[in-house]
Amino acid sequence: MTHTFFTKHESTLTKALEAISTRGYWSPFSEIPNPKVYGETAAADGEAAFKAHLNRVFELDQPTTGKTVGAEVSPFGIELKLSYPEPDTEALFAAAAHAQVSWRKAGPQAWVGISMEILSRLNRASFEIAHSVMHTTGQAFMMAFQAGGPHAQDRALEAVTYAWAALRTIPGTAHWEKPQGKNPPLAMQKSYTVVPRGTGLVLGCCTFPTWNSYSGIFADLATGNAVVVKPHPGAILPLAITVQIAREVLKEAGFDPNVVTLFATNPNDGAQVQALALRPEVKLIDFTGSTQNGDWLEQHAHQAHVYTEKAGVNQIVIDSTDDLKSVARNIAFSLALYSGQMCTAPQNIYVPRAGIRTAEGMVDFDTVAQAIADAVKKLTSDPARAVDLIGAIQNQQVVDRIAQARKLGEVLLDSQALVHPAFPEARIHTPLLVKLDAATDAAKYTGEWFGPIAFVIASDASTVMLQQAGEIAAKHGALTLSVYSTDDTVLAAAHEASLAGGVALSVNLTGAVFVNQSAAFSDFHGTGANPAANAALTDAAFVANRFRVIQSRVHVAPKAESAAA
Amino acid sequence: MTHTFFTKHESTLTKALEAISTRGYWSPFSEIPNPKVYGETAAADGEAAFKAHLNRVFELDQPTTGKTVGAEVSPFGIELKLSYPEPDTEALFAAAAHAQVSWRKAGPQAWVGISMEILSRLNRASFEIAHSVMHTTGQAFMMAFQAGGPHAQDRALEAVTYAWAALRTIPGTAHWEKPQGKNPPLAMQKSYTVVPRGTGLVLGCCTFPTWNSYSGIFADLATGNAVVVKPHPGAILPLAITVQIAREVLKEAGFDPNVVTLFATNPNDGAQVQALALRPEVKLIDFTGSTQNGDWLEQHAHQAHVYTEKAGVNQIVIDSTDDLKSVARNIAFSLALYSGQMCTAPQNIYVPRAGIRTAEGMVDFDTVAQAIADAVKKLTSDPARAVDLIGAIQNQQVVDRIAQARKLGEVLLDSQALVHPAFPEARIHTPLLVKLDAATDAAKYTGEWFGPIAFVIASDASTVMLQQAGEIAAKHGALTLSVYSTDDTVLAAAHEASLAGGVALSVNLTGAVFVNQSAAFSDFHGTGANPAANAALTDAAFVANRFRVIQSRVHVAPKAESAAA
Repeated sequence: MTHTFFTKHESTLTKALEAISTRGYWSPFSEIPNPKVYGETAAADGEAAFKAHLNRVFELDQPTTGKTVGAEVSPFGIELKLSYPEPDTEALFAAAAHAQVSWRKAGPQAWVGISMEILSRLNRASFEIAHSVMHTTGQAFMMAFQAGGPHAQDRALEAVTYAWAALRTIPGTAHWEKPQGKNPPLAMQKSYTVVPRGTGLVLGCCTFPTWNSYSGIFADLATGNAVVVKPHPGAILPLAITVQIAREVLKEAGFDPNVVTLFATNPNDGAQVQALALRPEVKLIDFTGSTQNGDWLEQHAHQAHVYTEKAGVNQIVIDSTDDLKSVARNIAFSLALYSGQMCTAPQNIYVPRAGIRTAEGMVDFDTVAQAIADAVKKLTSDPARAVDLIGAIQNQQVVDRIAQARKLGEVLLDSQALVHPAFPEARIHTPLLVKLDAATDAAKYTGEWFGPIAFVIASDASTVMLQQAGEIAAKHGALTLSVYSTDDTVLAAAHEASLAGGVALSVNLTGAVFVNQSAAFSDFHGTGANPAANAALTDAAFVANRFRVIQSRVHVAPKAESAAA
Repeated sequence: MTHTFFTKHESTLTKALEAISTRGYWSPFSEIPNPKVYGETAAADGEAAFKAHLNRVFELDQPTTGKTVGAEVSPFGIELKLSYPEPDTEALFAAAAHAQVSWRKAGPQAWVGISMEILSRLNRASFEIAHSVMHTTGQAFMMAFQAGGPHAQDRALEAVTYAWAALRTIPGTAHWEKPQGKNPPLAMQKSYTVVPRGTGLVLGCCTFPTWNSYSGIFADLATGNAVVVKPHPGAILPLAITVQIAREVLKEAGFDPNVVTLFATNPNDGAQVQALALRPEVKLIDFTGSTQNGDWLEQHAHQAHVYTEKAGVNQIVIDSTDDLKSVARNIAFSLALYSGQMCTAPQNIYVPRAGIRTAEGMVDFDTVAQAIADAVKKLTSDPARAVDLIGAIQNQQVVDRIAQARKLGEVLLDSQALVHPAFPEARIHTPLLVKLDAATDAAKYTGEWFGPIAFVIASDASTVMLQQAGEIAAKHGALTLSVYSTDDTVLAAAHEASLAGGVALSVNLTGAVFVNQSAAFSDFHGTGANPAANAALTDAAFVANRFRVIQSRVHVAPKAESAAA
């Protein structure tokens, strides 16, 4: 009864199970767009496949009103003219519920095997998805390929793996036999059936449409649920391609493809999304986006389990270092990468007013601030090089926010508009660095300023700032905390702050690992322990409530008695 | 670094881990109040210990206003005069939060080891707890001993076991090493710290104060949280003794005993409980009680993970049998046991209007209904024998409900007030059986009539009724569903109904297992898949959100490089 696709992917699953328990480096998907891995024509084929989507209605054979929706705009300024079948809401949710019945009956091995087959097909489509991610999010191509392709697929596989780790512990049957003293024992045969919750709704974001949605989509699928994928109206195509591929695999495996459907919308779909989120058949919601919308879901969608990733304030405390240049370079890279439009990007950089200790003695605040500003400048001053790192700004609100942030304090490094050598209409802005003071400016820096905006904050002693950083994380949310120190007391305080703030800590990153990066199978993304996210990608808690176990019991002949007879 | 108590109980834990995965019969706690197991003087000592609590203020050295609370009334009519220190709310929650800091740092082995030591001490106190359960809930002594003692301890250990199963999969550290082509690999040392949520609030019920609360209390404790135990004002003593024993063990192990505190209240504490439930430091709530109160918690306590067990409609479908007498006797026992005051007790008994098939041919509806009524009568007509089975009625509202239910339809068997031979003031009432019709009376039987009230319902064909039973469970909640049939088609329909209704199924119970009974380590109690409960006792989902994992990472020398060097 083992499903073909389960057998096909079982050895990968075994390695993935090992990876989530040892948490060392592991990935089955190559992050390098190497022709030897992806095929000699993969890059060209992927670009062609992307271009073929432009100027037409995306093909999806799911319930539609017959009209179309969609108004994506490329941050790189190319004309997209993408559109999608407008979903017929009632018919689509009915079709998902109908499809889920036979999907539910297929059982864990089919759910997991087919999920993994979808992932392997998605991997093959990594170039097509990369272009679609690039031209909806503004990510530079290499990041769009890695984060939109193999890294997103890693996160998806991680969710499938946690699902399987949970599902495989539930026995199909049990023999229960209770001794009754001198009388024959009571004996029962029990069976346990995994019952998925029903329909999951996955609400995507406009910066990482695949990376931030795949965990929810695949956690739902691998536990037997139907999934309605509702992309952000600004980044539909990457998830449309994903849904299309999932449906192809489902069909091929003999299932109703409406197990996975796309709910594409026009911009400003807030009221529409709220109505979807309250539908009684929606039992699971995965959301990435604003705190306001995430809190609304947590507080209103009582019929569902709601998993949210919301805004946060990521912080760096610089206490002391033997290598200020590497510190500055590492931080600058983190600020520049995709123009700070990563939920993990640092925003608040605390530097003691009294300066920091280095191998060469004390270095004053201004010098540290200047070192960071210079490092950012170095990475972003040459447009031709810069654009491959900073990409483009996803939407105009982010650009407007830069203008607002400029007024908050003394500008250490101003944001510059750059011209992309290949895309003259691209919306490109380098990071803004503003100087603030911890004593007077807390109201300014305890909220998220999403985008290429960071603050260098003149602060009290490091241990004091670390405690405050922990409190800010606990109160306002945070996905990352970073510390630079050569002092064990300060590192211990940083560790305490990370536990108090419920936030992952990075220590003395001066090399080629950046605080923004989170590696599937090893790093938990988010913790569920502060307001930035009520769940982590991925742990056992992320999958445990996506299914239930229903048992049945009936008397049978005792084994002990038959043995005695 | 292994904790002494962890080592002491490790072999039991190993067996418990095996039990939750194979789900056969297993219990480390004897359900028989045997002097050889519990000690020759255990019964007398336990009774004396119970009596020593009467007519005085319960001793607990936790933050108090100096006043006392408590107004428990024995359903058996003896004078209790129990009182408890009134908690100083602010001081008590502050003390719990303070105690949790060092408890958190002790780590998983200490949490689990100390939880198991508390359980072994509770087991020794089973007679004292039995008397306290009997005289607060109205359970007859044997049930109070079993359900209040060893069976509750089983459920607690089950929760500890699931907690350990989850905690042990999280590595303390990991070496992460990512190849970089011809360059040296990137290497990081990562550490993972389990961080409990903080303070848990456990809200007990008045019928099974220990059984229904222990899973939550011990799931919280075993994952490093502090627990504030708020008993139902009608059944404080069993949980007060529990808290006292937990505090003794914590003190002995060198911890602040305020990790576990008692929040005793006077009757009508609704507004007070709502205020507790919304406190920001309360991150976990376990509740057993009414649908109204449970729904309120689910919809308002957004700062907490809320686990509820609420009302439900338990149903039996009689389709056909080879042994009507045994069917009637088994059902009658289920109805009589603790006067139907079990959340698992059946209420709706569907019998086809056309009668049922038996080995002797068709038996008409009235004969089946009469057989059940006769079987109940037989069990309950002799007061001296009956009281050991039906116990007493917990509170006057249940008695009032019998009077209301009598008006719903034709009375098949009237409820009788009995006089207890040993407790002349005891509130004792035998089950009421009313005849209803599925075609006209759905409004009457789709709500819970908690207490010794059941309906024999003239129904359509069994498969139709099973589908309706599944729908009723899905809409109104249910903890149990039972079917009697010799027909495989009907049994398949019953299985489908149990999946659709998200309710555990019992098939053809005619012997010494009753639908009300739920055995830890084998039967899941509740499913989380219908409105009767949003969680099951106990599965992985019950523990997964009670802690988070916070990681830290720092660069280290690559191993591959050193190996190559």
